[in-house]
Amino acid sequence: MIRVAVNGYGTIGKRVADAVLKQPDMRLVGITKMTPNFESIEAMRRGIKIYTSKENMSLFRSKGVEIHGEVEELFRDADVIVDATPNGVGAKYKQLYQSLGKKAVFQGGEKADVAQVSFSALCNFNEALGKDTARVVSCNTTGILRVICTSMHIGEIEKVRGTIVRRAADLKEVKKGPINSIVADPASVPSHHAVDVKTVLKGLDIVTAAVVAPTNLMHLHTLFVTMKEPPSKDKLMEEFANTSRIVLIRDISSTAELFEAARDYGRPRADMPEVMVFADSISVNSKEITFMYAVHQESIVVPENIDAIRALNGVNSSMEITNQTLGILKGVFP
Amino acid sequence: MIRVAVNGYGTIGKRVADAVLKQPDMRLVGITKMTPNFESIEAMRRGIKIYTSKENMSLFRSKGVEIHGEVEELFRDADVIVDATPNGVGAKYKQLYQSLGKKAVFQGGEKADVAQVSFSALCNFNEALGKDTARVVSCNTTGILRVICTSMHIGEIEKVRGTIVRRAADLKEVKKGPINSIVADPASVPSHHAVDVKTVLKGLDIVTAAVVAPTNLMHLHTLFVTMKEPPSKDKLMEEFANTSRIVLIRDISSTAELFEAARDYGRPRADMPEVMVFADSISVNSKEITFMYAVHQESIVVPENIDAIRALNGVNSSMEITNQTLGILKGVFP
Repeated sequence: MIRVAVNGYGTIGKRVADAVLKQPDMRLVGITKMTPNFESIEAMRRGIKIYTSKENMSLFRSKGVEIHGEVEELFRDADVIVDATPNGVGAKYKQLYQSLGKKAVFQGGEKADVAQVSFSALCNFNEALGKDTARVVSCNTTGILRVICTSMHIGEIEKVRGTIVRRAADLKEVKKGPINSIVADPASVPSHHAVDVKTVLKGLDIVTAAVVAPTNLMHLHTLFVTMKEPPSKDKLMEEFANTSRIVLIRDISSTAELFEAARDYGRPRADMPEVMVFADSISVNSKEITFMYAVHQESIVVPENIDAIRALNGVNSSMEITNQTLGILKGVFP
Repeated sequence: MIRVAVNGYGTIGKRVADAVLKQPDMRLVGITKMTPNFESIEAMRRGIKIYTSKENMSLFRSKGVEIHGEVEELFRDADVIVDATPNGVGAKYKQLYQSLGKKAVFQGGEKADVAQVSFSALCNFNEALGKDTARVVSCNTTGILRVICTSMHIGEIEKVRGTIVRRAADLKEVKKGPINSIVADPASVPSHHAVDVKTVLKGLDIVTAAVVAPTNLMHLHTLFVTMKEPPSKDKLMEEFANTSRIVLIRDISSTAELFEAARDYGRPRADMPEVMVFADSISVNSKEITFMYAVHQESIVVPENIDAIRALNGVNSSMEITNQTLGILKGVFP
């Protein structure tokens, strides 16, 4: 049993905690939480042990939230800590994890040098095997890497160019914008996504441009992939159809419909941890492959976090059990 | 004096009418309007003669809107009719314009075969000289063509790839969406924009993908242009800076800020008929040029409509006077 602590119980942390609870070889020793909001009540209802700072304990208890101890006690009980704290905070915790001799999984909001390896299960699982620290790349980068590493099965890639249309905020957020604007983010090229992809695929020629749109459901990417030799569309479709964590969508062309489909399907929180590729958008023209897909920012990195936990613990096979326990799809949806 | 009638007084029609009023060599003989809404009151206030169908006359008069006659009377008085009717309606009017022996300018919502030439002032002004009919390509296509034909001044283009993030509706529209979704529109490649560009630049290798975002201010494009030889960034910047109808923006990265800047600048209706290029997004890497720019869907085609009127009437110099009378900018804004 791998004992897992989740540090931070926000958008990513609560999903990783739920996913850990479903793994036969893992035990969730607890989570940390700094504010006693509805999410901590929900964690308690699920029987999850909550840890906080010494100063916050009385505040939590005054709200009726049971506290099991201080943050550091939790970390001591764990083999691996999944750091799901806000961007940049993980780097501050790193020393504590190290001084306690604990392995740690960081998120893509941290700089690449926070960990020994930047991680994408479909691209470089083995690189993380037995390491002390791994950083699961961000949601958009995870999406790009899944489709790129899958495309690599049918031939060598010459270059990748793409545009990332980002959602402005997550569903629960009420203070972020824009509400009526398209924002070039940044108004320079490349966006950090191309740079982040290269932390995993070191030599790849990739340039991305990113804009933000006033919506909160999913990101949407358009990718232009140039191969070294003219690829077969049939082979590409076959690879996409047979790769877990990639789903082909038909008769749906928007993130709103995808969200509704996930709600109808009965997904917890209407999550879509798969890359949702618009099947009709896949086109091959000489050496060029073009396609469009949606990325669910809140959940896409969850299976990768589970795989990273196993990889750090030297378990050299993870994806299949992660896919099974989390009900990850492949092929055509819905 | 070129006598101009504007058929349809919606988003494009009212702007073209205003622009015609500013031309020293044109006379606005009148406009047509089918519904007596606030726009017709405003036209009357500006002293513009309004024409409608026989059936609609009493309705307009009951609302206090003065009517000068029937639609066909207006057309008879004109040398050129600018058709600014809804998408596809122009094609139905075409026969009437022809039977009256009138020249006509159509909009990009019509199919390319509605007119003898698809028109972009910076690309193919001369092709429209003396013709009977021209079709000003759509707002997005006008934007693409302006930057592409300007880029061609510094070298030959090998190919263009790009993503168009479209606004969902215009400011006055209350029934169109999406309001919280990114829509692949279509969820296939290429979008019609690449096809439309080729109605002007026939041999160009161009592929575009398009998505719709829930905003109503402007479109935003990301373009990857591959040249046949490595281009000079300085020369490209110089071309962009010295071409009217293209503006370089600094310290602004969103359509919301652009709209506010146009309001502050005192532009009628806060219009931005220029292509607004994010200066810092222009990057040159070997043979590739990448840049991002915003396109104001409501006004970008207005100067091109004015130029098309002159071209059809055999006037072989138009852009400069259009730019002057409409206060079209070049260089750095704001």
